[in-house]
Order: sequence, then structure tokens, then C-alpha cells
Amino acid sequence: MPKVKFVPQNKEIKVNAGTNLLKAADEAGLYIEGDCAGKGTCGKCRVRIVEGDTGEPTKAEKKHLSAGELEAGWALSCQRKIKQDSIIEVPMQKEAHLRKTTLAGGVENLEAEPTVEKVAVKLSRPAVKDQTADLERLLDHLKRPQLSVKLRELSGFPGMLRDNAYSVTTAITGNRIISIEPGDTSDQLYGIAFDIGTTTIMGSLLDLNNAAVIAVAAATNPQNIYGADVISRINHASQGKEELKQLQDKVLDSANNIIKDLLKQTKVARDRVYEVVAVGNTTMSHLFMGIDPTYLAPAPFIPAYSRALQVEVSELGLEINPAGRVTFLPNIAGYVGSDTVGVIVATEMDQRKDNCAAIDIGTNGELVLAANGRLMACSTAAGPAFEGAQIKQGMRAAAGAIESVSYVDNEIQVGTIDDLPASGICGSGLIDAAAALIDAGLIEATGRFVNPAENPEKVPAHFKDRLKRSQGGLEFILVPGRDSETGEDIVLSQGDLRELQLAKGAIYAGLMILLKEAGISENDLDEVLLAGAFGNYVRKESALTIGLLPQLPPEKIVAVGNAAGDGSKMALASETIRNRALALPEKVEHLELSTRSDFQDIFVDALKFR
Amino acid sequence: MPKVKFVPQNKEIKVNAGTNLLKAADEAGLYIEGDCAGKGTCGKCRVRIVEGDTGEPTKAEKKHLSAGELEAGWALSCQRKIKQDSIIEVPMQKEAHLRKTTLAGGVENLEAEPTVEKVAVKLSRPAVKDQTADLERLLDHLKRPQLSVKLRELSGFPGMLRDNAYSVTTAITGNRIISIEPGDTSDQLYGIAFDIGTTTIMGSLLDLNNAAVIAVAAATNPQNIYGADVISRINHASQGKEELKQLQDKVLDSANNIIKDLLKQTKVARDRVYEVVAVGNTTMSHLFMGIDPTYLAPAPFIPAYSRALQVEVSELGLEINPAGRVTFLPNIAGYVGSDTVGVIVATEMDQRKDNCAAIDIGTNGELVLAANGRLMACSTAAGPAFEGAQIKQGMRAAAGAIESVSYVDNEIQVGTIDDLPASGICGSGLIDAAAALIDAGLIEATGRFVNPAENPEKVPAHFKDRLKRSQGGLEFILVPGRDSETGEDIVLSQGDLRELQLAKGAIYAGLMILLKEAGISENDLDEVLLAGAFGNYVRKESALTIGLLPQLPPEKIVAVGNAAGDGSKMALASETIRNRALALPEKVEHLELSTRSDFQDIFVDALKFR
Repeated sequence: MPKVKFVPQNKEIKVNAGTNLLKAADEAGLYIEGDCAGKGTCGKCRVRIVEGDTGEPTKAEKKHLSAGELEAGWALSCQRKIKQDSIIEVPMQKEAHLRKTTLAGGVENLEAEPTVEKVAVKLSRPAVKDQTADLERLLDHLKRPQLSVKLRELSGFPGMLRDNAYSVTTAITGNRIISIEPGDTSDQLYGIAFDIGTTTIMGSLLDLNNAAVIAVAAATNPQNIYGADVISRINHASQGKEELKQLQDKVLDSANNIIKDLLKQTKVARDRVYEVVAVGNTTMSHLFMGIDPTYLAPAPFIPAYSRALQVEVSELGLEINPAGRVTFLPNIAGYVGSDTVGVIVATEMDQRKDNCAAIDIGTNGELVLAANGRLMACSTAAGPAFEGAQIKQGMRAAAGAIESVSYVDNEIQVGTIDDLPASGICGSGLIDAAAALIDAGLIEATGRFVNPAENPEKVPAHFKDRLKRSQGGLEFILVPGRDSETGEDIVLSQGDLRELQLAKGAIYAGLMILLKEAGISENDLDEVLLAGAFGNYVRKESALTIGLLPQLPPEKIVAVGNAAGDGSKMALASETIRNRALALPEKVEHLELSTRSDFQDIFVDALKFR
Repeated sequence: MPKVKFVPQNKEIKVNAGTNLLKAADEAGLYIEGDCAGKGTCGKCRVRIVEGDTGEPTKAEKKHLSAGELEAGWALSCQRKIKQDSIIEVPMQKEAHLRKTTLAGGVENLEAEPTVEKVAVKLSRPAVKDQTADLERLLDHLKRPQLSVKLRELSGFPGMLRDNAYSVTTAITGNRIISIEPGDTSDQLYGIAFDIGTTTIMGSLLDLNNAAVIAVAAATNPQNIYGADVISRINHASQGKEELKQLQDKVLDSANNIIKDLLKQTKVARDRVYEVVAVGNTTMSHLFMGIDPTYLAPAPFIPAYSRALQVEVSELGLEINPAGRVTFLPNIAGYVGSDTVGVIVATEMDQRKDNCAAIDIGTNGELVLAANGRLMACSTAAGPAFEGAQIKQGMRAAAGAIESVSYVDNEIQVGTIDDLPASGICGSGLIDAAAALIDAGLIEATGRFVNPAENPEKVPAHFKDRLKRSQGGLEFILVPGRDSETGEDIVLSQGDLRELQLAKGAIYAGLMILLKEAGISENDLDEVLLAGAFGNYVRKESALTIGLLPQLPPEKIVAVGNAAGDGSKMALASETIRNRALALPEKVEHLELSTRSDFQDIFVDALKFR
């Protein structure tokens, strides 16, 4: 078996000859960015072959890499195979999720109401005149004779009782004792809230005795290797049990790494974490739980379940107290998942009396409308454009990404994350760029770039050189190659504008359908909430300029942070809030846009820039 | 590592040099009879060294084996060690449990009332206008939205539904779906009832749709290698987790072998067996469940639990449907276990209005008295004498065991199981032999043999040669060496009589205490029930002669077969009966004989023969 060494990470692995290089890196535990699941279409999984023959450049590589890059050994890892001992350079990945974790705040003013109760007891000693068995002695003392207990906890209980002078602490949830511990450990009561995103997995460790977030950790969802979008992952999972398990293992391994990180940060013992609550879209929920998601993909888009799944930790192998419980909050529909449930409880939309919409744009876009006492939700096929997929030089919101573009004093000004030389453009940069170029008069209402050759008078002289023609039509140079990190021009292409129009048009049209169904217009909205990292970093003015949002005064548009993740934490910390979340599938009306005969007209109209 | 070959079983195994030969045989899956857990005191674990040096004969071997036997290579396996490649002859073991299985009848006239329900359904197909998720579609149809389901069952459910035209069958118990199966499988509903004896493990496969026993299988309890009695096993288990697990693994492995046997006999599929109900003494219950039994041994004899333990199959690894359930019926006290609960429900003592006692003699002796509306139970330290332990040539009730002895026409007549040459004496033979020799005037009321040297007139001439003196006092030759299988005289020794007196005295005294507590005398008893194999094969007249049973007309003494095992089957087949069993620990008063100041006098008096 040939040996592959990855540098500068210095990870080595033996693989079968013929193994795909992207797969080999994955096996070695390296994350290589990419959106197309190895199809060769996104061009993002770049590596440099330092040593070893991995095959000749393919058509896909010739499309995405320059002759000079190919000469220098650059390749797309999905296009190459390991044939012999090799050394492969993997560019250090920029951690997009670091930015997201900064959004992960605490849960403010929340009353601690944990679903796990810890009770310290001191039992009387048995005697020949009182031969009550140990378990019954405990349950009599607790006055809860109906509690059940797992064998694993009962196994060493007699010795623990006697070694600790009959003083023990029980952790109880529902009608089960999930842990029996020596001495008084009632001050140690922890849980973890997960937000399982298609792109990013985030975990928060909560002290359940006071509803405080005491640590946060995150990682890129390693299912990414099977595609950036949920459809690619469903397609992979539907190939068979083995493939489904591959996807489940990826997310569970990642969750376990996050758990380890959280425990290390806080020195909390694994066995003192009794509960996990998770949110995610319906596909993520299925894959996390290892449930066949096949029938989510084709119409009529049927999930295996919509209720919350509450399972024992041992069913999943999460590395907390093995008798603990994992609750994945309920789905509303195939494309409106528990992440939306999280948004609703975190923003209290289920309890508001005014008219309010929430827009959560992640890898997909979900919309909720509370109006006239009804709660309605739909999902839009916005695709992952706002996360950089399908965008020529799109990237996630990591260091070096163009995150802001403005048109000031007849000039286009560009800002990057951490002020580094630009290496691509992220979602908020994309919207800003389009808005700035609209402001500059360089984009028509149809979304076409103004062509300087056709309408020279419309393009100021100093922009003429920046509007260049390429294979896919015109493109605007945001940062010239001499200033970029890659040495290439960083551009906004005509294709990028089309992707942006499709995405914003879908979201706007979805919102219009919800409003129509509720019998109100956009002017009747008292508030529009923007959830998620994207919603937090997008500039409202730009979003209004491109027509992503309804034409409302900016003060009515409010960024609410990672509301899905907050909902997960709140449902972990408070049983009352959890019960509200569990009841939502019954309360929320789901609108399936694909069945609406009026959707197409509204959508086509919404593609335009104003 | 040296290799050991066992003949004629032809099993080969590699072990570390220095491994005890008894352990090596156990690892090879061979059962070698023995009662003393390798201490060298019972002399029963005989093997012949065909090849290889296993050490010199020890003191223990010289005590139990003749010079000629040692010369021929016979050894006690517990005394030898494997040092080099060896060939060891293991005499074929006689299957004592075969006799017990003949007692395992059906459960007559029982109304099937299974706790697992199977429901076949045909669901409507989903559509864009009806996007109800698969699980909710099923639960809506069942009109039981609160049912939970394991991930393992849900995982492939979407594909199963579509592959079977939306026709599936669910197995439901309590509030859980434990199985979802393709098509209509409602006619396949099975369970297994176990009777986990210290000596013998028996399993019965029941068709739960009609409460019929369709197969029976049994095996010697392989925990035997750690001692024939419960105290030896508790002592081993209390050494640590590893040792506890050794004992648990033994019994679970054996149970799994029985399950395989039952399934093979009937061609029932493993996944169609949904439930196991087990009975056994309190120690067996702890060891089966893997719960530390340490504190059962010393006063005040405290079990870890008394309630029934209901656990998931996956907690134990029993090889039935992995989502199924295992219920070990409740214990009443440290030495009154669920086997006694089984006896009570099978004999309906909890519902009788007359005065009735039940005596269950297995490896221990348990007594139950129903009188004046009260139910009382106690255990007696009868020890395993009736199973041949502590008896010089004692053996279990296997082929060649002396099972009947009578005094007819001035002669002692001896019968063996299967009419084979005698190789030892089993429990019923022991009692018969004592009764016959009492009838012949050869045993005094104190239990001493009449000494021909002291009282020549009391011993008929033709018996004088049969009363011989040995190391431990006088002994009576039941079968001379020329007629026995072993070539040795098969005798009843003075020591054997002492063991018998201790055992029968303990049981009789226990019964007297129960009667005293109830305020009645033995003459007030309407019936005495004899449970267990021993109770079935013992001759009532002999038991009355030696004073094991109260002096009642023989027709009031009724053998009821393996009532403990029957109780297990009935609790499996009927939820009503199960609920009666689960309630018994609250209803049965346990008398701890060791706290009774009156016990010792009654016991000493009961040692006498009448």
C-alpha cells in the first residue's frame, strides 16, 4: 500500500493504490474545502503534488488551474489518484466557523429549568431487621418507587453505597435514573446544545443549574466531502446502509470532537453531561440519527419522521454520560427543519401578536411568518450561493474574504475579513458588491452588466478597465491580481449575478407567498428578523438595494444572531421552552411552494433588481 | 503457548503455560463436573492424562484416587497445570438436566394475553398534498401518537414502506414500537421463558399468540466451575468487576446457546422472539443481570434490588430481537428469589383460601406458606446435598445414579436411572437409602449407624458384611464394587447421613417456624406442594420416614413439577399473571430465620429421625 504524507500538517496514511486523493486526505483527518463532492466542477479542492505520480491533469483541472499552476504541481485533489508513495501539500484551510462562534452568545435572562434533576441523598443503613434491598432503599427515600434504572448504573451500586457511607447523588430524567454517583455531586449538572448546520457544526456547553453557556466550540461539517448541499448528501446516503453510515459517522465524530473540546476547555467530566439537544435542517437530523433520508429528495419530499427524536446516548455513541439522552428538536417538513423550530422559539414568534417575518439563510433559506395568529413556514431553493458555492470566486466567510463592497465618491471600495489581501468573496460581500455596482449604474434591472462596448456613456471611464470580458460574459474586477492573495483578479461575474438573482428571488418570492397566504402585504410587517451568521453580517441597505428584503424602513429589519442555535440552547436549559419547541410541528402551517401555481410568476418578477 | 487436545470430544485449544487444567477445559467449552470450584475437596473433576506432563499427584488427588487410578493417568483436573502440549481424556458427562426437561410441560388452559402486540397495517401513500412523514403516518394510522421507536427500527423504515406497498407490521409493547417488519407478520409472535437454576438452566419457547410451549431446551449452568453453591459464586463475583463479568458471561452464553437450540428446533426467526421472562434465585438474578451480589453473602443479606428488572435485550446481548425486553421476575429477599415467585403464581398460592405449604428444593430450599390470608416465605440453608454435593458418592440425577432404594423382604433393593451399573447416588436415592436403612433398623434416631460390633443383635447377619468401617466412620454398601460402574463400592456413609440430617432438619424447622408464625400446626395443613425436579422424584413415603415432611396423610402431599419454571412461562404468556408476579414482593412476608431465637431449638429437634 502506498504511503501518502500530507504537509505542512505532517499527517501520514497508507491507502490502497488507486485511492482518490480527496478521499485519502479525508481518511487522514484533513479537511479540504470543496463544494461539489469531488465532481471537479467547483475547482476549490486545490493541493500541490510535491512528490509522487498522481496522474495527468484532467479537463476539469485545465479549466480551473492556469498552465503555470499546473506546471508548479497544483492539482484538484478530487481528480487525482494515489499510485505510489507521495507527498502532498494541503493549503491551510481558513476556519470560516471561527466567525460564527463569535455570534454564539449566552442565553439571556433565562430561568434554569433543566429536564434532568440531581438529588443528593443519605440513606439509612440496612440491618437484619430492615433487609430492604439497596435500590428499593434509594427509591423509598426518593419517594419515587416507579423510577427505572439501567443495569450499568445498578451494577456497582451496592459497593458505591457502602464505600460512601450511604451518601449518593442520583440524576433523574422523566421516570428514569440515568446516573448514580458517589457523594454529593448535585452541583455538577451539564448539557450540550448543538446546531448541526450543513456547513458548520456548533456546540455549546451549558451549566444547567443556572442556564449559563460556559464554553463554545465549532467545526466545519465534515460531511462536506460528500457535497456542500443537502441534495448531494441525500443522494450519497440513499446508495445504501454503508453510505448512510458514512455520513452519520462524519457528523457524530465531529460532534464528539466538539464535546471533547468543550470538556477540555472547562474541565467538566464527561459523565456529568447528561443531555444533548440538537437542531438542524431535516436532512441533517436524518443523517445525525442515521435514518434513511432518500425520500426527502424527490417530490413529494417526505421525511421519515417529523416529531422530535429522543434517544439514548448509547444509540448514537456520543461521548457524554452513556445513560444520558439526545433530543433532536422536531422537523416541520422536509425542508423546514428543527433549525427553524429553534429560530421560532428563540425569537418567540410563537408568542408574538404582531406581524413578523423571520428569514434564516444558511445553506438553504427558510422563512417563517407570524401574522393574524397564524404561524406559517416555507423553504426556498436559495441554494448555498450565500456561502460561496456556485460563485466563481466564492468562499466562506473566512479571513481574506471580501465581506464589504461600497460605492462611495464614485469609487468602489472593498473590505476583507481581517484586512488580508483578498482571496475570494463571501455572501455578504457578494450582496454588497451587487448593490454597489447597482448604485454605480453598472448593473441593469435585468441583472445584466452594462456593456461598455454597447453603452460607453453609461460606464465611467475609470471603470472601463475593470469591466472585462471572460468566457462566461462580462465580469467586474473587485480586486486586481496585483493586490490579491492569489495573484488572480477577484471578480464579480455575470454568472455570479445570475446565481444571486436566483437566490434572492427565491427568498423574496417565498416571503410574498407567505404574506399572500396570510392576507397581508409587506407594508403590514412590523418586523423582519434576520437569523443566522449571514443575516448578522449582511448590510441591510445592500439587501434592500438588491431586493432580497421587502422595502421597509431599515429599523424594522433586525439581525437576531444565530437564532437556531440559541433555540437549541434555550430548549436545553428550560423544559418549558423545550415543550414549546416540541409542540411546534402541530402549530406551524407548512406551505409547499412547489405546489403553488402562483409561485412561478412571483419568482420571475422577484429576479429583477429594482 | 502449549496446545491441549481433549478427547474423545476432539476439542483443541492453546493456553498459556501454567493454565489450570479445569480452566483450560472450560475455555475449550467442555463441562467437567465438580462441586467445589477447584478446591480439590469434592474429587469429582476426574480426567485422564493421555500425553503431556501436568505435574505430580497432589494430596487431594491421593485422597480421592486409588494408586491404580493414579498409575493409569487419572487425575483431578483442578489439581493439574498445562505445561506442554497435552492430550487429556475427559469422561463423557452425563446430562443430569435431560431428566429435568421431561418435567417441562406446557402451561395448561392458559389464556394467551401477551404483553407484546403485533399490528399489521396498510398505510395510504404520501403525496404533495399530504406530506405527513412516514413515522407520523404510521402512528396516526395506529391512533397511538405517543409510541416511541428505536433508531435501529426507524433507520430503514422509509425504504421498507415503499418496497412493500406501504404494508408493514409493528410489534408494540407498552409505549414502544420494538419492531417494524415488512408485510403482515402478525402470526409470528414468540417469547422465551427461562428458569435460571444454580445447577440447571432451562428455556422454553412459547408461541405467544396461543400460549403454547413449542420447544424446550436445557443445559448445566456453566457457572458451576466457580462452585456448585451460590456462596462460592458470590465470593468469586465480589472479587471485582472482571470476576462478576465472568459469571455473567457464563450464564448469558449458556442462555444464548439454549435460544439457538430452541430456534433451530422450531425454525422460528430470531427477530420474531420479542421477549424473555426469567426466574431464578436472588443470586442467579444478580449474576444474570451483572449486578454486584457481594452483600447477599454476609448478614444482613442485602440484595441490590428486589423489584423485577425489566431491561432491553441490548443491555444483555441476548440473541432475540435486539429491541425486545427481558424481565427477571422480582426477588422477595436475599435467599427467596423469583423462582419462589414463580412457584407461588404457578400454584396460585396467592389466591388460595385454605392452608397450604410449598417446598422447593433445588440447590437451596425455599418454603412458602399460605395461611389465614397471609403469604409467608423463608429460605433454609439446606445446601446442595440433594443434588449430590457434600455426599461421598453423590451425583446429580443422571444415568447410573442410584435413584431408589427400598427395604423389601428383609433385603435392600437398589434401582438406578436407566438401569445402568451404579456410579453414584442422587438426591432421591439418598433419601430412599436412609429411609430403607431406618426401616431395616440399621440407623438410630440420632442418625448413627447401628454398630454391629457394639450391638450385634440389632444387625441381621446378611447385612453385617455390608456395614463396613472407613475413615469417616461406618458406611453401608449399597452396591458392591463388582456390580458398580466404577469398580468401587457405592456406599451411604455416616457423613452422608449427617449431611442429610442437616438438610432435612433445616427444611422441616423452616416449615415449623412458618406454621408457628401463622398460628397453626402441621395438622392444619390442607396440602403440601413439592416443587422442582427433586420434589417430583422423591418418594413421599421415604421423605415422611426421614422426617423431611410433616406427618400428613400421603394424599395431602402433591408433587407439582417444575413450578418455578411454570411460573416463568405463565408470566410470559399472560400479562395478568405477570402483574400478579410483579406485585408479590409487597404481598409476601419474608421471615429471616437467622434472627429467630426459637429456630435453633426447633432445628436441633428436627435433626432426629423419628
